[in-house]
Amino acid sequence: MDADSLNISCLGPCRIDSPFMKTLAQVNKETSYVTDDDRMLFDCSKNAILSAEDTSNLPAFELAGPREKIYFDPSKTRCAIVTCGGLCPGINDVIRGMVMNLHYRYNVKNIYGIRYGYQGFIPSYGHDVLDLSPDVVKDIHKYGGTMLGTSRGQQDPVEIVDCLERMSISVLFVIGGDGTIRGALKISEEIKRRNLKISVIGIPKTIDNDIMYIDQSFGFETAFSEAVKSISSAHTEALGGMNGIGLVKLMGRQSGFIACFAALAMNDVNFVLIPEVPFRLEGENGFLNSLKKRLERRRHAVIVVAEGAGQDYLNTDKSLTDASGNVLLGDIGLYLKQIIGDYFKRINMEITMKYIDPSYIIRSVPASPQDRVFCLRLAQVAVHAAMAGKTDMIVGRYYNKLVHIPMKLASSGRKRVDPNSDLWLSVLEATGQPMEFK
Amino acid sequence: MDADSLNISCLGPCRIDSPFMKTLAQVNKETSYVTDDDRMLFDCSKNAILSAEDTSNLPAFELAGPREKIYFDPSKTRCAIVTCGGLCPGINDVIRGMVMNLHYRYNVKNIYGIRYGYQGFIPSYGHDVLDLSPDVVKDIHKYGGTMLGTSRGQQDPVEIVDCLERMSISVLFVIGGDGTIRGALKISEEIKRRNLKISVIGIPKTIDNDIMYIDQSFGFETAFSEAVKSISSAHTEALGGMNGIGLVKLMGRQSGFIACFAALAMNDVNFVLIPEVPFRLEGENGFLNSLKKRLERRRHAVIVVAEGAGQDYLNTDKSLTDASGNVLLGDIGLYLKQIIGDYFKRINMEITMKYIDPSYIIRSVPASPQDRVFCLRLAQVAVHAAMAGKTDMIVGRYYNKLVHIPMKLASSGRKRVDPNSDLWLSVLEATGQPMEFK
Amino acid sequence: MDADSLNISCLGPCRIDSPFMKTLAQVNKETSYVTDDDRMLFDCSKNAILSAEDTSNLPAFELAGPREKIYFDPSKTRCAIVTCGGLCPGINDVIRGMVMNLHYRYNVKNIYGIRYGYQGFIPSYGHDVLDLSPDVVKDIHKYGGTMLGTSRGQQDPVEIVDCLERMSISVLFVIGGDGTIRGALKISEEIKRRNLKISVIGIPKTIDNDIMYIDQSFGFETAFSEAVKSISSAHTEALGGMNGIGLVKLMGRQSGFIACFAALAMNDVNFVLIPEVPFRLEGENGFLNSLKKRLERRRHAVIVVAEGAGQDYLNTDKSLTDASGNVLLGDIGLYLKQIIGDYFKRINMEITMKYIDPSYIIRSVPASPQDRVFCLRLAQVAVHAAMAGKTDMIVGRYYNKLVHIPMKLASSGRKRVDPNSDLWLSVLEATGQPMEFK
Amino acid sequence: MDADSLNISCLGPCRIDSPFMKTLAQVNKETSYVTDDDRMLFDCSKNAILSAEDTSNLPAFELAGPREKIYFDPSKTRCAIVTCGGLCPGINDVIRGMVMNLHYRYNVKNIYGIRYGYQGFIPSYGHDVLDLSPDVVKDIHKYGGTMLGTSRGQQDPVEIVDCLERMSISVLFVIGGDGTIRGALKISEEIKRRNLKISVIGIPKTIDNDIMYIDQSFGFETAFSEAVKSISSAHTEALGGMNGIGLVKLMGRQSGFIACFAALAMNDVNFVLIPEVPFRLEGENGFLNSLKKRLERRRHAVIVVAEGAGQDYLNTDKSLTDASGNVLLGDIGLYLKQIIGDYFKRINMEITMKYIDPSYIIRSVPASPQDRVFCLRLAQVAVHAAMAGKTDMIVGRYYNKLVHIPMKLASSGRKRVDPNSDLWLSVLEATGQPMEFK
Repeated sequence: MDADSLNISCLGPCRIDSPFMKTLAQVNKETSYVTDDDRMLFDCSKNAILSAEDTSNLPAFELAGPREKIYFDPSKTRCAIVTCGGLCPGINDVIRGMVMNLHYRYNVKNIYGIRYGYQGFIPSYGHDVLDLSPDVVKDIHKYGGTMLGTSRGQQDPVEIVDCLERMSISVLFVIGGDGTIRGALKISEEIKRRNLKISVIGIPKTIDNDIMYIDQSFGFETAFSEAVKSISSAHTEALGGMNGIGLVKLMGRQSGFIACFAALAMNDVNFVLIPEVPFRLEGENGFLNSLKKRLERRRHAVIVVAEGAGQDYLNTDKSLTDASGNVLLGDIGLYLKQIIGDYFKRINMEITMKYIDPSYIIRSVPASPQDRVFCLRLAQVAVHAAMAGKTDMIVGRYYNKLVHIPMKLASSGRKRVDPNSDLWLSVLEATGQPMEFK
Repeated sequence: MDADSLNISCLGPCRIDSPFMKTLAQVNKETSYVTDDDRMLFDCSKNAILSAEDTSNLPAFELAGPREKIYFDPSKTRCAIVTCGGLCPGINDVIRGMVMNLHYRYNVKNIYGIRYGYQGFIPSYGHDVLDLSPDVVKDIHKYGGTMLGTSRGQQDPVEIVDCLERMSISVLFVIGGDGTIRGALKISEEIKRRNLKISVIGIPKTIDNDIMYIDQSFGFETAFSEAVKSISSAHTEALGGMNGIGLVKLMGRQSGFIACFAALAMNDVNFVLIPEVPFRLEGENGFLNSLKKRLERRRHAVIVVAEGAGQDYLNTDKSLTDASGNVLLGDIGLYLKQIIGDYFKRINMEITMKYIDPSYIIRSVPASPQDRVFCLRLAQVAVHAAMAGKTDMIVGRYYNKLVHIPMKLASSGRKRVDPNSDLWLSVLEATGQPMEFK
Repeated sequence: MDADSLNISCLGPCRIDSPFMKTLAQVNKETSYVTDDDRMLFDCSKNAILSAEDTSNLPAFELAGPREKIYFDPSKTRCAIVTCGGLCPGINDVIRGMVMNLHYRYNVKNIYGIRYGYQGFIPSYGHDVLDLSPDVVKDIHKYGGTMLGTSRGQQDPVEIVDCLERMSISVLFVIGGDGTIRGALKISEEIKRRNLKISVIGIPKTIDNDIMYIDQSFGFETAFSEAVKSISSAHTEALGGMNGIGLVKLMGRQSGFIACFAALAMNDVNFVLIPEVPFRLEGENGFLNSLKKRLERRRHAVIVVAEGAGQDYLNTDKSLTDASGNVLLGDIGLYLKQIIGDYFKRINMEITMKYIDPSYIIRSVPASPQDRVFCLRLAQVAVHAAMAGKTDMIVGRYYNKLVHIPMKLASSGRKRVDPNSDLWLSVLEATGQPMEFK
Repeated sequence: MDADSLNISCLGPCRIDSPFMKTLAQVNKETSYVTDDDRMLFDCSKNAILSAEDTSNLPAFELAGPREKIYFDPSKTRCAIVTCGGLCPGINDVIRGMVMNLHYRYNVKNIYGIRYGYQGFIPSYGHDVLDLSPDVVKDIHKYGGTMLGTSRGQQDPVEIVDCLERMSISVLFVIGGDGTIRGALKISEEIKRRNLKISVIGIPKTIDNDIMYIDQSFGFETAFSEAVKSISSAHTEALGGMNGIGLVKLMGRQSGFIACFAALAMNDVNFVLIPEVPFRLEGENGFLNSLKKRLERRRHAVIVVAEGAGQDYLNTDKSLTDASGNVLLGDIGLYLKQIIGDYFKRINMEITMKYIDPSYIIRSVPASPQDRVFCLRLAQVAVHAAMAGKTDMIVGRYYNKLVHIPMKLASSGRKRVDPNSDLWLSVLEATGQPMEFK
């Protein structure tokens, strides 16, 4: 990792006294602000230090937190908040936390909620803009979803920046996944092209927990905790039927974290299939035969499959997909359901299978108390960063500390379950499933 | 209603002192048993009395409860319990309650659990039989499902009674829906043909709450309470998207009680579609246009559809079903999802729709505390009835009292939502939906 | 029971067409209103009919429900709602249901919320009055408590009726317990003295479920369901300690229903003490020795005590109460805690005891889905009754039907657990506690 | 921090191939064990590196995880598990995780559960020892508490080591708080005195989250999440009464983390009092006057007080405590309740106050899904450390990584809320309470 690639862009030097820091100074003998020199090592292992050629410039992330001086004059600052992509527990908590921090700590009174994602910037959609104040957001954390509404997909950065200019926005807060972050980078490029002083700050939202360099994303805990309930239902159904099979499809397009954590938290799962670990269906050591053996031994089985698992399989094995039709092609849950049903019919073994797809039930719940606190902290540091003129960055937890991460870096890849990690080994142990289906 | 049709069959006169009543007598000055003359009027309205020609023989159900004398000698009594059909919250509570009552109140020590429904009686399936004792059932109420397993469908009554004879069973407790009850009647006929003294007692299980003459069936409360969570999720998703639609399919093959009660308990539903109230999709006053108007007015909508709603529609409107294929034919949820999608595409109105089918999640939860108490009471009176030699009957709550209901009567029809009832009017009010889609 | 004592007072003849019934008539071929002749027998047993001397005038309650003609002209009707006494789950649901029904079904637009119980009528307190509309009450059922606030105790009926006159109130809805109902009767007397046409309708609120002639009061189910959680905690704590004792005090001033139902729903309770069943502490067959034997046998014990249990005991045994001080005198929970601690110290047996008093946690939760539906129905029929000019009555569920009950009758006594009933016998069985501590 | 003080003691060199690592090697091309050189820097800030005189020996914790070679021969290893102190969510998960890992990954079959804390080692108590196997612990994580039972206080290390010798124990796992850890160190000293080869490994249990050098202790998340419910109840009660006050006492003897996190997660708290921040009651800027002003402004208030808050106050202000008696002296909750009541009586302002003490309800719940996964991981690494012959250490999460921490170091102090930290500032913001009551 190149040390420079961890640096955060800034709109300019910070020369204004932070009203937040002034309040603090009245109370605390020692002020407790963070400086840009306060950094968290990129690699905190002792070996990294021992093997470094030059310990004077190790790569390190800026620590998040309040700065002594800020870039934007609060009385003239206008902020916009937009939420994009699918629902995830905690979005309202982040919105609420940002409004509260802007209003009470920085005295920023002009905060606007953009409706239905990036669409809200585009005049042709005709969406209104919401005025956000403590009164408006006071109770929104008690509900799931996003009070602003959301939409998927990009919009033209030129039109978006036109809108930001029209509204005289100083800070744009973007809550969204990696597609949204990439969209934010394009917005930022257009801002720079026009030489505007608009900060763009991202709060990464991914129910799959797949953002690079981030310990855990907000809402992930709530999500896998909810998933546990569906697994419990699948287990009960599996026990209820002769050779009962409970099949649960969980979220996880490219990363199987929810499936893994849910299986660890609820030890009644017998098979976990994730995108990171390919599996064979047929053959002596294939999944289907393994499932059959499990049923012969225990008369029931619970299977958790992440939605992105076995995708390549779906595309290559044409003979199987022919029968399933279009709908099944991309949906590993329905595909497995059919394949399993066909298999046991073929070998003449009676089963009862129940299929559970809790996706929207999980995405829409309010955040758990721990996620609430986490969202609040993320919101606070996002505001601190914005007021200090930082831009093109996201906030995230790294080695359990809140840090600033350049958008470019964060969107350069995707965090995935490492099949050699203790996480996956724990899953194998908890399920008792074979190391490989091959 | 003919007074005689409410009479309960009995295997013979009760001549044995109930050990349960003896224990009671030690404590209470006044014994508190129930006699067969204690009856609950079939019609408790004052008008029924005023208009009766002969008030000396009004139709009335036997009250359930402990009898002073019993028919079976506890030390020689062997009981069997079987659970049939789909899962429903509370089955384990009923099993547990019967085992506890048989064991502790009547000193019946031989209680057998038949596995996987009526299959468990048929030798060719090779299922084992479980010994049930307080230790075995102690904690089962903490889990959903049925500890005995279940299966759907009938089995040969001859083989079943062969098995009952082989096992020297005196009482068969059947927990199941109306199909199961009809099966129990056939078993009972075979028992009579062989002149055996075996009591057959049913505890009606229907998550749809559709058993005739019964206030409410066990598990129903838990079921609609769980359904409320799915509706809440659908509401959150609907609010999150531009013209957001949350579509929830709930249980209710022929009776829409779950849909109605869930909608009343969670006032964010805008449309409830149930089997009892036909609806038109197309046209000025059709459902689709009404949905469109709702979206134009409020930008989101929540729809709850019972699985049995619109079934005739599905069959008659061939032109629509052609496109949907086999899978969609019987599934009103997926059918509506497609029809709604097509409609808004046709009129060029952008929507976002989320479909939730929580069926197995609801069926598999443990019973709520109130359902637990209800299951316990049902189990107790089922045991009382059985020990008194009653047969061909089910237990149920009628005008809030536990009564004995002849199986024949209970399986003669199906309770359904009355479109003229206050229940349906309350739903109309709570949703604000038009009185009819025509 | 005298048939006349069940009659409901009326302010005058109903001559106005109900707008609600008119809407109905448009939809339903058969109108579905209720007449005052539709009555529910006071005693629905067959024996009651057989033993009646005259079956032409059996005592019977008026059925609740919409009337064809109403007394009050909706456009001129002004309603007031007041909530009194301690919190109980569901109050907000009742308020909400009444406002919705008045507004949408009857077009009554002037609805006022009186704040902090009867205090709200008294000018010297200076409380404001709230305007209640669908918008105001839309979401209140998602929260526990009462949006109007509450207070305990009576206020001067003269001042209250002065206020009703000043506000030109036609209907006063009173949500409260038996003290509140008695207060309402006094208000009604003052109304009559002044010859005013004001209807006073009560919706009985008692978390203890102790109102006469009523199957179950709203909020009771939610309350005992919550209590189950505390019992579960007590059980866990009891298991965790050497000779662990979990002691839970539950609500129930004069009636032990919550304690009984919670113990039945959560079968880990070993002793239930309720006001209706006296108990001795000391002696061979006393509670303390029984507790000791339980600990010797199983090493842990869970005790549930209703707050009104053993009150006479507290007063008579002066020697024990001397040491405990004032606070302990009336509090059976803290008293038992001390007595048990002293006893085991005396006999030199090491125990660990944990005391749980969940009172306010239980009272303040939102209503369960079933209680929500129940509250809605109660609210609707209260409105129907009021608009028909009924007065001095409460609404309640009787033999599972909603009926009108004269206030005088309902407040003439208190429903209590019958020690000879199946309910108490079930509790004895579930706990395994001795029939008596004597 | 001295680098050497972070070193972990070892019973001897590891020469046995780990069966766990062998299984791994079959699957993974690259083995994924951890070596003792894999260390996590004590201070991961970049400044720490820049200011270090010698970067070749920076203080660092050993990373936890499986080692390639182990010290104990699995077939001859006998392990004991003991749980001490108060209940905390997750104890059963830790027990279960250790048994599973020992059994399945290391083939250690002799695992013993010591009952009721350190008492279980002392013959005079006569407690039995439990055999722990996967079958025994399979479902224990579904319940709160500890299946082994617990007790408070120390026992004679000589007797304990006598017992360990008699049982031929190789590894003692101790789950407990800092008192328990100090007890474990004494046991370890006695072990060394006798020159035995017994590893002593601690899994720190503290519901207060107050163990030094540890991000977060297991059960803490579950605990503050449960506390949120009590706060919600207090809020509802406060809203229900005229000048309503909801007063909640939460755990936190010396550290107010639960109070802070619960208040952040549930934004209806107006005052948080913790042990780390002294407060004055009387005076213009005192707590009582501030409470009064809050009531005048908003008519209700919610107060959260950690049990260790204001302890010094209780002792110094003799005049106030005289009236309260012994019970009140140490109990800040009851003390505040009385002081507040007295104050408003004195200034003649009517209030209604509800006091909630949810302690045992919180301590006894099962762990949340996230805490479950955390407990499992802690258990796994505790087993890895033990099998590698490590001793006198605890496992914990540090900078989000699992590490080995010397017992001596961990028990040298206590983690507390820093009044200058962002955590406390967030609490001040969320509550709106003054920075100081002085």
